[in-house]
Amino acid sequence: MDIRSLLGKRVTERIKPSAITEMMILVKKHNAISLTAGEPSSDVYPADLLRESIEKALRDPGILSYYPLSTGITELREWIAEWMKEDELLPQGYGGENVIMTNGSQDGLNLVSEAFVEPGDTVLVENPTYPEALLAFGKEGANFASVPVDKDGPIVEEMEKVLSKGRVKMFYTIVNFQNPSGCVTCDERKRQILELARRYGFLIIEDDPYRYLRYEGNHEGSYIKMAQDEDMVIYLGSFSKIIAPGIRCGFMVVPSKIASQMGELVLATKLSLPAFLQRAVFELLSSLDMKAHLAHLRETYVARRNALDASLADNAVPQGMTYDLPMGGFFIWARVPWLKDCFDFAKYAVLEEHVGVVPGAAFFPDTSSADSSTLRLSFAKTPPEIAREAGLRLGRALEKYRAKCEY
Amino acid sequence: MDIRSLLGKRVTERIKPSAITEMMILVKKHNAISLTAGEPSSDVYPADLLRESIEKALRDPGILSYYPLSTGITELREWIAEWMKEDELLPQGYGGENVIMTNGSQDGLNLVSEAFVEPGDTVLVENPTYPEALLAFGKEGANFASVPVDKDGPIVEEMEKVLSKGRVKMFYTIVNFQNPSGCVTCDERKRQILELARRYGFLIIEDDPYRYLRYEGNHEGSYIKMAQDEDMVIYLGSFSKIIAPGIRCGFMVVPSKIASQMGELVLATKLSLPAFLQRAVFELLSSLDMKAHLAHLRETYVARRNALDASLADNAVPQGMTYDLPMGGFFIWARVPWLKDCFDFAKYAVLEEHVGVVPGAAFFPDTSSADSSTLRLSFAKTPPEIAREAGLRLGRALEKYRAKCEY
Repeated sequence: MDIRSLLGKRVTERIKPSAITEMMILVKKHNAISLTAGEPSSDVYPADLLRESIEKALRDPGILSYYPLSTGITELREWIAEWMKEDELLPQGYGGENVIMTNGSQDGLNLVSEAFVEPGDTVLVENPTYPEALLAFGKEGANFASVPVDKDGPIVEEMEKVLSKGRVKMFYTIVNFQNPSGCVTCDERKRQILELARRYGFLIIEDDPYRYLRYEGNHEGSYIKMAQDEDMVIYLGSFSKIIAPGIRCGFMVVPSKIASQMGELVLATKLSLPAFLQRAVFELLSSLDMKAHLAHLRETYVARRNALDASLADNAVPQGMTYDLPMGGFFIWARVPWLKDCFDFAKYAVLEEHVGVVPGAAFFPDTSSADSSTLRLSFAKTPPEIAREAGLRLGRALEKYRAKCEY
Repeated sequence: MDIRSLLGKRVTERIKPSAITEMMILVKKHNAISLTAGEPSSDVYPADLLRESIEKALRDPGILSYYPLSTGITELREWIAEWMKEDELLPQGYGGENVIMTNGSQDGLNLVSEAFVEPGDTVLVENPTYPEALLAFGKEGANFASVPVDKDGPIVEEMEKVLSKGRVKMFYTIVNFQNPSGCVTCDERKRQILELARRYGFLIIEDDPYRYLRYEGNHEGSYIKMAQDEDMVIYLGSFSKIIAPGIRCGFMVVPSKIASQMGELVLATKLSLPAFLQRAVFELLSSLDMKAHLAHLRETYVARRNALDASLADNAVPQGMTYDLPMGGFFIWARVPWLKDCFDFAKYAVLEEHVGVVPGAAFFPDTSSADSSTLRLSFAKTPPEIAREAGLRLGRALEKYRAKCEY
């Protein structure tokens, strides 16, 4: 018997290695400067406060028992609901009972996929989009349709064309500082898209990990608040970008009508998540001056963005690179028109110049029409002086690679 | 639009509330003595050592970044492989690379289900069995066949009858102190069942959370070691019963041939689990005197088992209860022949006598033939004096309930 012959379609056909993870591993192996992962810099993690918070949480050893609510601890769920309400992100009538804690946003994406996607269902995504979301939806047999984005979000006319062609079950969108393009969906677009959702009867999955990392301009509202009591939106949030990704603490906000069923789904997949860790996050949030912390994060990242921008202008733009500077988030979405194979170049850049980027083609839902001249550059982990060096190396890698290709 | 109309079969047809969780919540609400959950007593958790271990782990804030290996941290995976090898549970050629960390065993069950089960596949389970495993397999559309157990494990002749009737994809078995029946599959049975697996080409899922809680008799071997290089077995292990369930730290051991694909499946569902917590568990295991710790656990639980047994003998056996005393684990699997509706009785016992048990009918894969005269009594959380009181209350509840039914 070959055990592989017993594997189902999920494993044999639908999932595949993650391009981002492969680049992270390659960069680590070669000790390269990383412009790869969309993850905060470890020097801004509140590690001491987390340690103290965990200590506090563990003073009650009962918290190490099975936690009977698969949806997570009540006090953290209520804190999140309050926090979102203060920011005018939640409709009236929503509270902690609508919040379900997740093992990072990927767990939330997967739960949404498992709850809604049946094989052959069409999921509409932005083009380009976050590839790990494609993994979660694809795992359950989703087909993908896509809508291009401009700086104000998904292009509504293009969306209507797709919708008129066939049934779409849900629309997955990263609303602020989209990964990878950096675009922000403005509220006017949200209104138009909600109107389409009403007309065509699809669900909106509003993924919002970068909201609090806005360096310029004004905050936009949320789909879930705009939809009010219409139950058309599931919101995904995360503490990965504002505390630390390694605590794996994300959440989803779901309409009351499906909250208990989503909780049963969590139970079937994992019983519950570590409650003491949720208690610790609650303790941390209760003692953290969030406004000051977020201001510190923004100050840190905008300096990194600007340093990378300046270095790219000096070193990579002369090699043909173009990009729009994002107003928030972690990513510069770059094009190098002469580049024919960004996967090959990304490997070359690590091996030859010790700088890691993520090949942009990985972000296109339709691989056959992926733009192979694109690169995603994360400035999250590179302090200004390292960002400058990264831009220098990237420029050099492009120059050498171009010469090699033309040879 | 009603969002519920967009939900898929998993949520609308396949999953349902957990009877164990419902009883845990009811017991908590009424502040009753709990013979419900199969969870260790919080006074035996090594909470101080865990706190110190977490502190050590967090000295490297880098551990709070995204962890690039979805399978878990290398040092803990290698520790587990070594530990299993010392106990002669692992085949030659297996090592840390075969171990995948999970959010408790339920996550492992779910990953196995997602990897192997296609809608309509038959999963063979023990009768009775652990109902949350049925949730995980059922969620992916499994049909169930079942094999009765006696004190030495699944009855091979009955198993052959089932196998001759139609294709079975996998056999799910809890090998030591089975939940709920308490049976232990002896090695001779394992050999016979492995032979059936070869002949009929099915996979064996060896779930083994209670191995180290043996109070009498000698340890048995493992299916996965007996199968050697035949790749017919996936082993599920857990630190829930020997450290604490709330750390949500379990693991699965898979053949090398499918290890990277299982890692990709983990990535699609959750990227990775909290690496700092795995580092802390590794630190804890490295500084814990495991032999002494396990001896302490066994001493604690055998006293509880004996106290509950003595009290049941005095108070519940006179009401018609019968059971075999288990040689390990957490559960007394009891029958009360005159009992017609164990769900109703379980609620009654909490409300009237403040003692919680789990209705045994929840443990039968085929609800239509479930034995409604059964109860699962966990002695894990009740120190001897409380166990005595629990038996007293249970006896009183049976007496009153019987009178009420006969009235």
